Amino acid sequence: MNNTMIGQGTKPLICVPLVGRTGDAVMAELSEVLVKKPDVIEWRADFFGDISQSDEVIRIANWIKKAAGDIPFIFTVRSRREGGQPITLNDHDILELLINICQNTGWEYIDYELSNPPAYIECLRTVALKTKKKIIGSFHDFEGTPAADILLQKFAQAVQYQLDVAKVAVMPRTLEDVLALLQVTLAAKRLVNIPIITISMGRYGVISRMIGGVFGSALSFAIGANSSAPGQIQIDDLRTVLTVIEKAIGASNN
Amino acid sequence: MNNTMIGQGTKPLICVPLVGRTGDAVMAELSEVLVKKPDVIEWRADFFGDISQSDEVIRIANWIKKAAGDIPFIFTVRSRREGGQPITLNDHDILELLINICQNTGWEYIDYELSNPPAYIECLRTVALKTKKKIIGSFHDFEGTPAADILLQKFAQAVQYQLDVAKVAVMPRTLEDVLALLQVTLAAKRLVNIPIITISMGRYGVISRMIGGVFGSALSFAIGANSSAPGQIQIDDLRTVLTVIEKAIGASNN
Repeated sequence: MNNTMIGQGTKPLICVPLVGRTGDAVMAELSEVLVKKPDVIEWRADFFGDISQSDEVIRIANWIKKAAGDIPFIFTVRSRREGGQPITLNDHDILELLINICQNTGWEYIDYELSNPPAYIECLRTVALKTKKKIIGSFHDFEGTPAADILLQKFAQAVQYQLDVAKVAVMPRTLEDVLALLQVTLAAKRLVNIPIITISMGRYGVISRMIGGVFGSALSFAIGANSSAPGQIQIDDLRTVLTVIEKAIGASNN
Repeated sequence: MNNTMIGQGTKPLICVPLVGRTGDAVMAELSEVLVKKPDVIEWRADFFGDISQSDEVIRIANWIKKAAGDIPFIFTVRSRREGGQPITLNDHDILELLINICQNTGWEYIDYELSNPPAYIECLRTVALKTKKKIIGSFHDFEGTPAADILLQKFAQAVQYQLDVAKVAVMPRTLEDVLALLQVTLAAKRLVNIPIITISMGRYGVISRMIGGVFGSALSFAIGANSSAPGQIQIDDLRTVLTVIEKAIGASNN
């Protein structure tokens, strides 16, 4: 892995999602996004039609990794309850698939929701340690922005589970909610010592995708080929803004 | 006046300052900034060496206006106590000069600090009404970010004096202060019905210059040729970011 891992580097990394329904679609998407040189690529496998065919998922994951070289990858099966696509796998099936990914691919990151059963999270953590994978403990709320103490609990939870990165993505109903999420980002950076990712989604939240790094968010999602969540902007636009911000206030997140 | 006035248009206007010490320097600066097509130009006349020579100030002001055509202009003598340059004029001399500008130039805006004596503000207001000038009632704190209620009083004061625009520029000591200023911006937009300009200065505050418009600030200061306050960025960089933001979240400030 020659590329920058989450939490390293002087400015937030840019991650683009792959959301194809078929293997061909995912591969075509990958070609399209590679041209745009993202720092990280996430495969949102809940969009993949054959997700119940483990062998096919592993085959494509390995194909992707081979094609994309050193770019760090995140494997994600977003649950329906946190904004993912409807799939036939149950929670246990998903855990099995993630373990399979850990054991049979060179992928760097697994996204796993903090709302999963503690025993499942601990199990995946054990496998990830053995297979040298990192886990992003994530929380999503597509309806609103929970209170600061609730969000801070999510970061604390990720640390308690000894996960590697904590991610919180919430929906603002007002611009105040966007400011609240940025405030939580500052507080979370003081609370935990793992890299964090925070996102205020949707139209109001767009600015959090641009300036979140100043407040301590280590990664921002953008569109390489297709969008995976409301409010994502084109990778070229995001990179332009991040470059201006870095030039203006320097590399430090303080 | 064909150009967009403060508070009009779909995104924040970009204003560049002129800070030359001599007439020649100011005119050279003007040529340099005009190429960059700012929406508004401010002459920070407290930087001008001959500010005590009213006739010379008026001559240059008229020369500038003629050279720059329809771009709205702000005439500003920033006081020492609010971050301006040391000058020999006292408060009464400054009032006289501003009245002179109202009566003898085609300039659109006069910046006048809300900390001036009420009688002076009312006097300038009367002259401005007669001469069809607009007054920007301003408040600056280069040391810190006062509490929200104190800042909101400044906006209310500008309305009580029947001024046309209210401007608040403060220095953050933390990133929380930057968020506080954006919060105040939202609150001020609900409180008053005149255009407002808010700025969090310095390194931390740079992002407020980029995203302030989303929260309701009608104008952002940038560098055309020279900077007049800490944290200003190059006009081209600011315009690039404002364009991305506008594209991403649309024209509305809600």
